[in-house]
Amino acid sequence: MRRLFALLILALIAPLAHSADRPPNLVVIFCDDLGYGDLGCYGNPVIRTPHLDRMAAEGLRFTDFYAAAAVCTPSRAALLTGRYAIRSGLSFVLFPTSMGGLPQSEVTIATALKGVGYHTAHVGKWHLGIHPGQRPTDHGFVSSFGVPYSNDMDSTPASWKLAASATPPVDGYNIPLLRDGVELERPVDQRSLTKRYTDEARRVITTAKDKPFFLYFAHNFPHVPVFASPDFAGKSRRGIYGDAVEEIDWSVGQVIATLREVGVAENTLVVFTSDNGPWLIMGDQGGSAGPLKDGKGCTWEGGMRVPGIAWWPGRIAPGITSEPASTLDLLPTFLGLAKAPLPSDRELDGIDLAPLLFSGKALPERPFFYYRGTRVAAVRVGDFKAHFFTQTGYGGAKPEEHNPPVLHHLGRDPSERHNIAAAHPDIVEKLTKLRDEHQAAMKPGTPQHTR
Amino acid sequence: MRRLFALLILALIAPLAHSADRPPNLVVIFCDDLGYGDLGCYGNPVIRTPHLDRMAAEGLRFTDFYAAAAVCTPSRAALLTGRYAIRSGLSFVLFPTSMGGLPQSEVTIATALKGVGYHTAHVGKWHLGIHPGQRPTDHGFVSSFGVPYSNDMDSTPASWKLAASATPPVDGYNIPLLRDGVELERPVDQRSLTKRYTDEARRVITTAKDKPFFLYFAHNFPHVPVFASPDFAGKSRRGIYGDAVEEIDWSVGQVIATLREVGVAENTLVVFTSDNGPWLIMGDQGGSAGPLKDGKGCTWEGGMRVPGIAWWPGRIAPGITSEPASTLDLLPTFLGLAKAPLPSDRELDGIDLAPLLFSGKALPERPFFYYRGTRVAAVRVGDFKAHFFTQTGYGGAKPEEHNPPVLHHLGRDPSERHNIAAAHPDIVEKLTKLRDEHQAAMKPGTPQHTR
Repeated sequence: MRRLFALLILALIAPLAHSADRPPNLVVIFCDDLGYGDLGCYGNPVIRTPHLDRMAAEGLRFTDFYAAAAVCTPSRAALLTGRYAIRSGLSFVLFPTSMGGLPQSEVTIATALKGVGYHTAHVGKWHLGIHPGQRPTDHGFVSSFGVPYSNDMDSTPASWKLAASATPPVDGYNIPLLRDGVELERPVDQRSLTKRYTDEARRVITTAKDKPFFLYFAHNFPHVPVFASPDFAGKSRRGIYGDAVEEIDWSVGQVIATLREVGVAENTLVVFTSDNGPWLIMGDQGGSAGPLKDGKGCTWEGGMRVPGIAWWPGRIAPGITSEPASTLDLLPTFLGLAKAPLPSDRELDGIDLAPLLFSGKALPERPFFYYRGTRVAAVRVGDFKAHFFTQTGYGGAKPEEHNPPVLHHLGRDPSERHNIAAAHPDIVEKLTKLRDEHQAAMKPGTPQHTR
Repeated sequence: MRRLFALLILALIAPLAHSADRPPNLVVIFCDDLGYGDLGCYGNPVIRTPHLDRMAAEGLRFTDFYAAAAVCTPSRAALLTGRYAIRSGLSFVLFPTSMGGLPQSEVTIATALKGVGYHTAHVGKWHLGIHPGQRPTDHGFVSSFGVPYSNDMDSTPASWKLAASATPPVDGYNIPLLRDGVELERPVDQRSLTKRYTDEARRVITTAKDKPFFLYFAHNFPHVPVFASPDFAGKSRRGIYGDAVEEIDWSVGQVIATLREVGVAENTLVVFTSDNGPWLIMGDQGGSAGPLKDGKGCTWEGGMRVPGIAWWPGRIAPGITSEPASTLDLLPTFLGLAKAPLPSDRELDGIDLAPLLFSGKALPERPFFYYRGTRVAAVRVGDFKAHFFTQTGYGGAKPEEHNPPVLHHLGRDPSERHNIAAAHPDIVEKLTKLRDEHQAAMKPGTPQHTR
């Protein structure tokens, strides 16, 4: 009887010991051009996102989470390296004709986690270079399944013009679907992308279960041209844009369901976010920044503040946080959880979010720099944000320089309507100094977009 | 032993039988100028509303809930009578000098429910007349505790100008606090209003427990001048506006906690909403319509679409609905639940929401008319909304007539940006006909604001 009891105790303790020893699985679900106001849990009045709403209700929803750039390539470089994109020379968007890409000298989350025994998988969009040394498998990903750049690229001028329409031509964008660099289909039928990515994500989760895994799942949508599978097309009130977001929501539900099926949900951190704000000039095929000002491409809040949800059942308490955080923080957070050493020979721009995520502690006050290209357009500390130059969204608008800078209080004035610089010369001085020091210390990487 | 068992069974069954027989308690919490985007669960990025978020998570949150007018007096008349305000002659806001008010000939929710044995209590703002025959106790409320009109009224020109400031003068608005018509304090210290209203609401709930009760709890805030109690002033990131909304959120939590304490939560329907959209011209002391266009005073969505949450533990399943509904529906819904006869000698403009609330059924398609004063400015059916004239918010803007009307699709274009009338002549014709028929059949009540 005593022996049976001891065995019983062992049987109860063993899985706990196992999961306590084993580093957690880490998943990033990264959307393309999804705006701050595009999800139900962020106040969208039309688009139905029950799986993301549930993920938010069970996890930690950030009100002040940022992409570290206002456009695609820099935002992805920043997330994967934990550094402002200027450091890797990726301040601008790459095109299929670009020779540049993420330099081999950069250390990505995948490289670091692979180094401590993780299975590392890339699913979805890449957009950090297509040449040797720049591709997912050159940057720490053991497996890669997806599309090398934005889904509107490699198009004829005629089909590019139709990218913003509700019915873009299915074969109008000559983008390839690659597995580990090998072309599977070109042009890929974009209506199938979200489903195929989801299948691949499920495969990664189910087959990698003997190792901890890092899954970087970067959707191509809701970037224009917006497509959805037949199961979702025509189903939302919000047109094809809503269809695509609702399909992504379904996909998130599938990822979470798979984690539960495989029995690893309690040992997995999932972070959901977006690469930048909504592409407003695309009309009904662009998303919504909700109450925030402007969208993709600019440094008003609507350009860079995005949905941010962190989910880990049993570890992250359900709640809402207004602590500012960004995709720059994911590398230090993930490496900390994996007990992987931080790269010590370079500047990192994020911090480990563990105290906030797991203990609800306030983060140290720190500046966040809003880059537009290679210049710092704005800096935020606490609720104050100083803008040194402003430039509307994406397109032909010229920058308007502000000296002294304009100042907004993002708490009292979340839509950035009232310049309060005159009333706060001390804050203006403090933020300007932070900008100056940051720029003076910055060592930009070799520009990649000019190659 | 057998006898004990029988007693036990009886003790278990008795409360159930009791609650099944007894009509439910009915509570309306009605805010003043709270915008569609002002709560966490409706996407506000700054204001913390944990009690309302929980109420929404446990209940049914409407994405398309309307106040039946874009300003105060008509909106309140419509809610209490279940009829567009034009029918009672209350198309415009009343002032302290007005002789008019809600005519004695109108049947309010309170009158009808009192007639079937409810305790009926008014707490908070009234704004439907101050003269005999017009007051809460003349319209079916057994008890009344509150303020007779808006909290910016009875002010000197100097203090009115300060109403939009972050620090309005505490004694600048000569509004009285009345109990059953008897003046308790004048000017009332507005910083105390939300707390005192909440105490009174708690008192109503605790003392009325031997009868079913109807509690009409109409907050004065966040209407300007915005005040909060010392417990809340200076606590929110959003300035005094956020403080006031967070205090209302606390108050909602108190009401729900009291319902639970008294043991009647499972027999109580609580509806939370607002009288119109945010008063945008008040700057930081006005709220947010989130992604919706414009605010208080106008017939763009931001003027009339408001938060709408229905809560009844065990009866209403948690969820989100995009069925359009409005405050006009509360009278038929409440009277249906109370088994009170509907007034049969007059037009009612709402429908019973029970099938939606308790069985998740779609509501019949029906037009919603957006009144501006005595004219129908717009009509919505399904997702289509035709605007016959438009007029920006509150203030000096003149109406712009549209013939043919402009047409928006509130699903694909929730921010009302693209006029699609040219593509849908059939819809335009259908909506125009509905407007014409409605106006032709309308019998306006005697105008009250000119008296």
